[in-house]
Amino acid sequence: MKQVRIGIAGLGTVAQGVLAVLKDNGPLIARRTGIELVVARVASRAAKPEVDLCGATFTTSLDDLCNDSEVDVVVELIGGDTVAKDLIEQALAVGKPVVTANKAVIAGHGTSLFASNQAVPLKFEAAVAAAIPIIQAIQQGLVANRFEHVIGIINGTCNYILSAMEEQGMSFDDALLKAQELGFAEADPTFDVEGIDAGHKLTIMLALAFDSTFDFDKIYVEGITKVTAEDIKYADELGYRIKHLGIVRSVDAGLEARAHLALVPKSQLLANVSNEQNAILVKSDAAGSTLFSGPGAGGAATASAVISDVVAVAQRLGGVEAGYVPDIQAGPPIIAMGEVSSAHYLRIPTLDQPGVFAQVANALSSHDISIEAAIQKEPQQAQDAVAIVILTNVTTENAINAALEELDELEYVVGEIMRIRVESL
Amino acid sequence: MKQVRIGIAGLGTVAQGVLAVLKDNGPLIARRTGIELVVARVASRAAKPEVDLCGATFTTSLDDLCNDSEVDVVVELIGGDTVAKDLIEQALAVGKPVVTANKAVIAGHGTSLFASNQAVPLKFEAAVAAAIPIIQAIQQGLVANRFEHVIGIINGTCNYILSAMEEQGMSFDDALLKAQELGFAEADPTFDVEGIDAGHKLTIMLALAFDSTFDFDKIYVEGITKVTAEDIKYADELGYRIKHLGIVRSVDAGLEARAHLALVPKSQLLANVSNEQNAILVKSDAAGSTLFSGPGAGGAATASAVISDVVAVAQRLGGVEAGYVPDIQAGPPIIAMGEVSSAHYLRIPTLDQPGVFAQVANALSSHDISIEAAIQKEPQQAQDAVAIVILTNVTTENAINAALEELDELEYVVGEIMRIRVESL
Repeated sequence: MKQVRIGIAGLGTVAQGVLAVLKDNGPLIARRTGIELVVARVASRAAKPEVDLCGATFTTSLDDLCNDSEVDVVVELIGGDTVAKDLIEQALAVGKPVVTANKAVIAGHGTSLFASNQAVPLKFEAAVAAAIPIIQAIQQGLVANRFEHVIGIINGTCNYILSAMEEQGMSFDDALLKAQELGFAEADPTFDVEGIDAGHKLTIMLALAFDSTFDFDKIYVEGITKVTAEDIKYADELGYRIKHLGIVRSVDAGLEARAHLALVPKSQLLANVSNEQNAILVKSDAAGSTLFSGPGAGGAATASAVISDVVAVAQRLGGVEAGYVPDIQAGPPIIAMGEVSSAHYLRIPTLDQPGVFAQVANALSSHDISIEAAIQKEPQQAQDAVAIVILTNVTTENAINAALEELDELEYVVGEIMRIRVESL
Repeated sequence: MKQVRIGIAGLGTVAQGVLAVLKDNGPLIARRTGIELVVARVASRAAKPEVDLCGATFTTSLDDLCNDSEVDVVVELIGGDTVAKDLIEQALAVGKPVVTANKAVIAGHGTSLFASNQAVPLKFEAAVAAAIPIIQAIQQGLVANRFEHVIGIINGTCNYILSAMEEQGMSFDDALLKAQELGFAEADPTFDVEGIDAGHKLTIMLALAFDSTFDFDKIYVEGITKVTAEDIKYADELGYRIKHLGIVRSVDAGLEARAHLALVPKSQLLANVSNEQNAILVKSDAAGSTLFSGPGAGGAATASAVISDVVAVAQRLGGVEAGYVPDIQAGPPIIAMGEVSSAHYLRIPTLDQPGVFAQVANALSSHDISIEAAIQKEPQQAQDAVAIVILTNVTTENAINAALEELDELEYVVGEIMRIRVESL
């Protein structure tokens, strides 16, 4: 098993997420990828908090990471765009690959960072939409495509506020307050609600999808602070939801690049991405319209992306194939269908007779199945069969199968019973 | 520039898609990835159709691909699981990496194929959900995660039929006929409507996400042929849509693995994936719930995934970093915001006076802006301002900005006008 040693700069939420995920899933990752990731150093200029460093040496000097021969890969999780930028430059200069979650540094300085360090990997999956592997999708999964547009809900704070305003009729101020209480907005929310964070992420996606430089200054940016509950209501009446979108679109004259509020038809998948979720809609010539959604922030979700980058760099350093060869040992057992549990939809064709519903309910009840919801309509004509439609509680396949056999034999059941499982996800 | 030479087996829809995409985007792919993909051979036992082979030599003998020293990577696009399996085995045995779009071969024989050929890459992104890079997401983007469930709409034929039944009230038979007319269902639709195709794809995702073997035989499979328009109506009344899902879920006793119809709450993103689209919802411990959607079939969409695999293999063969370093030359120009075109939502606070709406309409019209929809409600109290809400046609920012200046100066406009762009996507 090859070892790759990482040095982490920063010890905030994301760094703690990386340490926690490596602690929980390190052996699984090693088995899948053929690489054991060892946290060799953690550097933070703040005092060391009470967290498990996975055996790493702690230092308050960031320089130590670059100078240390025990560190193969530098993971920059400081944030901000001054000290972090210096650290990234320093690491690349000494030939150490860098993984960063820092959208401000990449959006602001990506062009110069890549220009001066073509040979050393600098990876930044976590900088855009955290858990969603959108950078990889653009650079690898969709590499064969010419991109037409990339349109994203790429700021979770904005999306949470707009969802709260829509679903609970809140004012902007109240929704912001609630977002702050729940940890979806910072104490100073300017970067998020003024659209700057979305602009940074859009800058990065633009550069990758359109093979261009990182030019945050050229992006048109508006925030969400002027929107009212009234606007959201009117938009709803007109068939739309209001979202904050980052948009880059190829048109004849060049690229549109803009981040601002937008009305999106409710029928679109993107309009149905709510709360703190992010989503990116990518249209390209061969793949067509693809959409990627998930959590756009949070320690564990961001750590997922950071570690994915670290693994990619480590597999390359270790001469191991990217991804992983499926296991050829059997994994967890597949359980018998009879043991699977779910709720069920039943449509039972019956004669329109007194007491039929009670008979059905009794048959279910005798197998410990209760009724969560039911529909029974009057027959259109006297002699017609009527459907009794039932949603059951969660039960096993064995129980529902036994109940269905019993129902089939009831005198007033006059046709095949339709049964469909309910998946609440 | 490194050259990697590919040999394509098969000359059906997907192979033709691969040739067309390489012809259109080959230079772009080479610039991004540092690898020039050359189609060296095309082998098909059928007669050669009239398609541009990108300069490749044509042969009717599949064996030629494996024996040919001019072929670095074999791309298996024959389909079926006999001849295709033999070809894959033969190529791997002589050390040639294989890329395939063949779900039946991987679901049925993946375990033995990987067991006997650990050292030579065998890649199959296109086998599940075509254009959606879901294999890469599971194996790389989410590699740090322990998976909890993978739930997908992974058969476009089923999803198209169910959508047509829902949206147009069609019977199953009529919807199938329509799907066949539009090319979303085969002349013999058994594999799709009986759930076998979904079962194959689920088998593959299960093996990867749960580090297990490929065991199609252990998957519980039901199709969609029994569903009626009535069921879809009842489900709607109860707050659900009916979808055909492939589900693998980790529970205490092991894995649930099943493909069947299911009721999904309408509020879920997955329930809003309609027509021939596919989508996969992945829940994992660090990343949380992520969803990947897009076209699950079609020549170009499948080619996108095939070429992505070929690039990954080729970059590895060529010793080139996976993905691509962003361009450090400026790409297409970002156009001025004034030149951007979109429709607009306007909320204009006005006094409740006769002729106000006409004044507003005239101001817009003088800038060639027309009104697509409007809402004007009666004021709640006599002296209240009333909002005139308008959706305009598509116009430039310059035009709408000029119109807004004019509107601002109207006597009866009594507050700040809210303007939000409309994105129809």
